[in-house]
Amino acid sequence: MSNLHQQSLVIDGLNISKWERLVFEDMKKGGLSAVNCTISVWENFQGTVGNVVDMKNLIRDNADLLTLVRGVEDIKRAKKEGRTGVILGFQNAHAFEDNLGYIEVFAELGVRVVQLCYNTQNLIGTGCYERDGGLSGFGREVIAEMNRVGIMVDLSHVGGNTSSEAILASAKPVCYSHCLPSGLKQHPRNKSDEQLKFIADHGGFIGVTMFPPFLKRGSNANVDDYVEAFDYIINLVGDDCVGIGTDFTQGYGKPFFEWLTHDKGRHRRLTDFGTVINPEGFRTIGDFPNLTAATERAGWKESRIRKVLGENWLRVFGEVWGA
Amino acid sequence: MSNLHQQSLVIDGLNISKWERLVFEDMKKGGLSAVNCTISVWENFQGTVGNVVDMKNLIRDNADLLTLVRGVEDIKRAKKEGRTGVILGFQNAHAFEDNLGYIEVFAELGVRVVQLCYNTQNLIGTGCYERDGGLSGFGREVIAEMNRVGIMVDLSHVGGNTSSEAILASAKPVCYSHCLPSGLKQHPRNKSDEQLKFIADHGGFIGVTMFPPFLKRGSNANVDDYVEAFDYIINLVGDDCVGIGTDFTQGYGKPFFEWLTHDKGRHRRLTDFGTVINPEGFRTIGDFPNLTAATERAGWKESRIRKVLGENWLRVFGEVWGA
Repeated sequence: MSNLHQQSLVIDGLNISKWERLVFEDMKKGGLSAVNCTISVWENFQGTVGNVVDMKNLIRDNADLLTLVRGVEDIKRAKKEGRTGVILGFQNAHAFEDNLGYIEVFAELGVRVVQLCYNTQNLIGTGCYERDGGLSGFGREVIAEMNRVGIMVDLSHVGGNTSSEAILASAKPVCYSHCLPSGLKQHPRNKSDEQLKFIADHGGFIGVTMFPPFLKRGSNANVDDYVEAFDYIINLVGDDCVGIGTDFTQGYGKPFFEWLTHDKGRHRRLTDFGTVINPEGFRTIGDFPNLTAATERAGWKESRIRKVLGENWLRVFGEVWGA
Repeated sequence: MSNLHQQSLVIDGLNISKWERLVFEDMKKGGLSAVNCTISVWENFQGTVGNVVDMKNLIRDNADLLTLVRGVEDIKRAKKEGRTGVILGFQNAHAFEDNLGYIEVFAELGVRVVQLCYNTQNLIGTGCYERDGGLSGFGREVIAEMNRVGIMVDLSHVGGNTSSEAILASAKPVCYSHCLPSGLKQHPRNKSDEQLKFIADHGGFIGVTMFPPFLKRGSNANVDDYVEAFDYIINLVGDDCVGIGTDFTQGYGKPFFEWLTHDKGRHRRLTDFGTVINPEGFRTIGDFPNLTAATERAGWKESRIRKVLGENWLRVFGEVWGA
């Protein structure tokens, strides 16, 4: 591990791995200061509360490796203590069901980032795998409440119309926590130059993923291809609103992807990723130092490396969470 | 009560009154053979199953007046026995939640008519009180399953785009169970001539409501204004696909309308009906014979009266329910 990586605050803005000790040990190996850990996709309110409980038990049982993040100070503390801060996040606001009151409930439980839609239509808007009629009236109320209680709005899997309207509706910065540019590969999940510039122009944030199906070279990609994607986006929007959002799915097999890729976890198939092979040199969470090395090889200045590794996420989280 | 009314099969295609004995007695007085009784609007799956249980207990406790309708033979039997057949219906498919399997569950419990959306966006499409992006992919699956298990698709409170696409998507006749023509009064809930012709041209059905806020003369309307609305629609689409869908809210007061008119029953206000005064001569369900008398005054032939009073609904229910 290079000194630079070791000294830097490192934040993964989106990770949906299997929450178990092996993965937490790999976070330590990777030098991660904080991770936005997905704990809800298709689950309803009650199922998601159950997942929160499970995750908190895991944090307690693995307290040598983990600590819960409620504010940015917890991320700085985690870094100092050599632990990884767990940011509770959802990839679908389905768990809010039809009750705006549930949003504050989740905020009090510690949830800090919620994606509005996952791939298809819900009460708020529509995901990126079907025609998107935009943000609903209820969706506007959801965003206002998320702003009020300090939960960051994530738009990665959200459709283009709903995303644009959400960016305009939110009084606080929103993010694509894990995306790649259409400019490198056309894909329903990737964002056009216009979309990337639009969110940045409105104070929003872009986390860059290395999920191979969305990368130009797919399963043949390596960690340098991942840096190419960062460079593409930084070239468009600068390096102050860009961070990491790996989308690691470490520890999971086929049944998990079957659940993710079917509407509501069980109905029609929306997409098929085939076998997911992470980029060479960045196969596991423990390989994070290789990403820093790759940015150094690519000639990034130290200040840019530090910003993209974690300082940018830390700043925008502070803006949204209020502490 | 005229002989014609007494002899005719009389079906109310939509009624959302307070389910209690006073109302059931009024159904008897009104000579009703069957009523589509709304038992879910904003309730989720579990809440709605509770409402089904409550309604079945009411049917048992008032067996001198009521009988459950599972097929059209039950409506004919109810007429013979001098009881009123209860058709279980929802005004929102919210109760299906995110699970296509719940649709057959409700069919087995006896549910026979379900409106896809109530005023706003849900997982299926969008209601008539906000911008409508059309039928979702899940919505297409919902309609196919409703077709398969024999639950009629109702589009009264559904938006224009979702309605058009649902009419085309359904393999069985769909209905506006309770609507009025925009040609007589512009209102988000009323249907244009084009919409009325479109559903009729595709084998669908139109139930005509007398809900005063949607009538040309509002709270000053009388039963003859109601007949005028029938005449307007019959003039457009003929008299084979038209029936009654009163939208009676008998027994309810302000708290119920507050619940109906706020999104999800508790969030932003979508509309405000003020005080609802039913048309003179048709103030209560017991006044149904006055509607028949008014159609006779308007010069309707007996065959048309019989069709609109109930024979048309009976035929289309048979087409959808398969028995």
